[in-house]
Amino acid sequence: MDQRGGIDLGGTKIQAVVVDARNEVLGAERGPTPTAGGPADVAEAIADLMRAAAAAAGVEANALAGLGIGSPGEVDSERGTVGQARNLPGWEGSYPLGETLERELGVPVRLGNDVQVATDAEAELGAGRDYDSMLGVFWGTGVGGGIVLDRKPWLGRGIAGELGHVVVRIGGRRCPCGRHGCLEAYAGRGSMEARARKLAGEGRSTQLFELMEKRGRTRLTSGIWARALDRDDDLARELLDEAVEALGAGVASAVNLLDVEAVIVGGGLGVRLGEPYRARIEAAMLPHLFNDDAPPAIRLAALGDLGGAIGAALLVGRGGDGGRLAPGAGHA
Amino acid sequence: MDQRGGIDLGGTKIQAVVVDARNEVLGAERGPTPTAGGPADVAEAIADLMRAAAAAAGVEANALAGLGIGSPGEVDSERGTVGQARNLPGWEGSYPLGETLERELGVPVRLGNDVQVATDAEAELGAGRDYDSMLGVFWGTGVGGGIVLDRKPWLGRGIAGELGHVVVRIGGRRCPCGRHGCLEAYAGRGSMEARARKLAGEGRSTQLFELMEKRGRTRLTSGIWARALDRDDDLARELLDEAVEALGAGVASAVNLLDVEAVIVGGGLGVRLGEPYRARIEAAMLPHLFNDDAPPAIRLAALGDLGGAIGAALLVGRGGDGGRLAPGAGHA
Repeated sequence: MDQRGGIDLGGTKIQAVVVDARNEVLGAERGPTPTAGGPADVAEAIADLMRAAAAAAGVEANALAGLGIGSPGEVDSERGTVGQARNLPGWEGSYPLGETLERELGVPVRLGNDVQVATDAEAELGAGRDYDSMLGVFWGTGVGGGIVLDRKPWLGRGIAGELGHVVVRIGGRRCPCGRHGCLEAYAGRGSMEARARKLAGEGRSTQLFELMEKRGRTRLTSGIWARALDRDDDLARELLDEAVEALGAGVASAVNLLDVEAVIVGGGLGVRLGEPYRARIEAAMLPHLFNDDAPPAIRLAALGDLGGAIGAALLVGRGGDGGRLAPGAGHA
Repeated sequence: MDQRGGIDLGGTKIQAVVVDARNEVLGAERGPTPTAGGPADVAEAIADLMRAAAAAAGVEANALAGLGIGSPGEVDSERGTVGQARNLPGWEGSYPLGETLERELGVPVRLGNDVQVATDAEAELGAGRDYDSMLGVFWGTGVGGGIVLDRKPWLGRGIAGELGHVVVRIGGRRCPCGRHGCLEAYAGRGSMEARARKLAGEGRSTQLFELMEKRGRTRLTSGIWARALDRDDDLARELLDEAVEALGAGVASAVNLLDVEAVIVGGGLGVRLGEPYRARIEAAMLPHLFNDDAPPAIRLAALGDLGGAIGAALLVGRGGDGGRLAPGAGHA
């Protein structure tokens, strides 16, 4: 009963893990997020992947101490519901994801915000564990932010950490959120893809879409951006340069406000592009940093792709939102 | 012995108050900050104003329970020193302001950061007292920010709250800090004056400098900006429009990160321009606000010009930095 399950529910994939009492990963399984249907189909896919991860760990899913889920959208962890998850299929209203999976798997289920659980995992077990205060930067389809102050998540009135919607250029590019000049309008992989499609449509030469088709994808994944860089694709480099410039300004703004000890860079692009881009983001941040004599540590997320699911597993056995994070003491 | 002294040490003026146990102001005195000399001259001016405020309150200065000082520059509250106060005369090194005034006035002296004590005063006694979390926006020569989370000041590693150096336009206007595109480069009264001088020098017509000379000033004070607005001065209106636009973006960025319950607008310009500009800043913020269904309350600082000095008096009898703020319980 010391094993716990964790699910990272993303717009393109679902990652499941089983961890032990020391938060070591015993089994992991990944599958695509359903692109059609509705919340019930997503719940079924989660249950299937959880059973597969449990099998890989050598346990029955119903023998787990519990299951934690990091979800996008409006997560109500008290009620176990998720609403307004725009990147998930047919998910306009509120859906009782917790109750559904408790019935299906026979274990207690706890829900948390996807970015916050990934931040908690890095704070407690990953690159942030030596710091009392940190900003998690999750650079993927969007740009998520997670704030930890005095080793506790800072959630504000419930949605703190919207780093992707820090304004980096008044009157600037339109963001998927509908506003203008947000960090995410320049650095989100979704925005970068839209920009690449527009410029390619206008005749700019690029291998991005050829690489995408070769790999049988319909979106520009982090791997495709990385491959295009390896091939010296000018457009890919130009759009990543803009993304880094925007990340530098947005992260520096957050650090100027919060004066945290560390910034942890993760997310699909952050993990895939790794150290060279960590260093580039740091360099782009410094010219905007007020306290440039004592910049925060800028580190890569240490838990990589599994961080979100491991963080979700940390929800199990925890009293509620806002619990104090203690390094190496991930469960009650 | 229930009376405490408070000093707001600014670049152009020094405000002294004496408050009672309920933080009611019993006496107040204001004078110009010395423009020549060095730290010892500033200390002497503080001592003189403190004695005058005490006299106005009907007490002897040496009968006060203590004196708190809100200071610009690098404040070391443990050692009682202030360093690098660029807006004060001849103040390059570190100066033992606390010890000097303890000797001069015969009462215990505590130092704090000017913006932070003004924030504490609004949080504890002013417009922020009904909120557990708030952002103080001090719109004056620069743009200062103070953060209160769970009723406690958030100081980070010591210099959190640098709202003025949140980037609102990558590659934008040069800031007095030497960086580019900071909020303060558009909204700080110092930057606005520099911009007005430049445009007037290029032939733009404006009454700003005529009003300044008429009032015997050498700088564009908040009152002069307000007067120019009253006279429909185009240049003044244009520069204030830019300031409001930048404040909207910068404050929204901070709220998107912190999701605080309230934003309190104070500072020389904030207090002088009052409600119409509070409403304009709110309107400029909304288009950038991620949580626009539930914006924070945007309120004017309730303690006006005396907030900094009252906040400094709150330092007396408090254990140290980071003490919990309790409404109506301003001293130990």
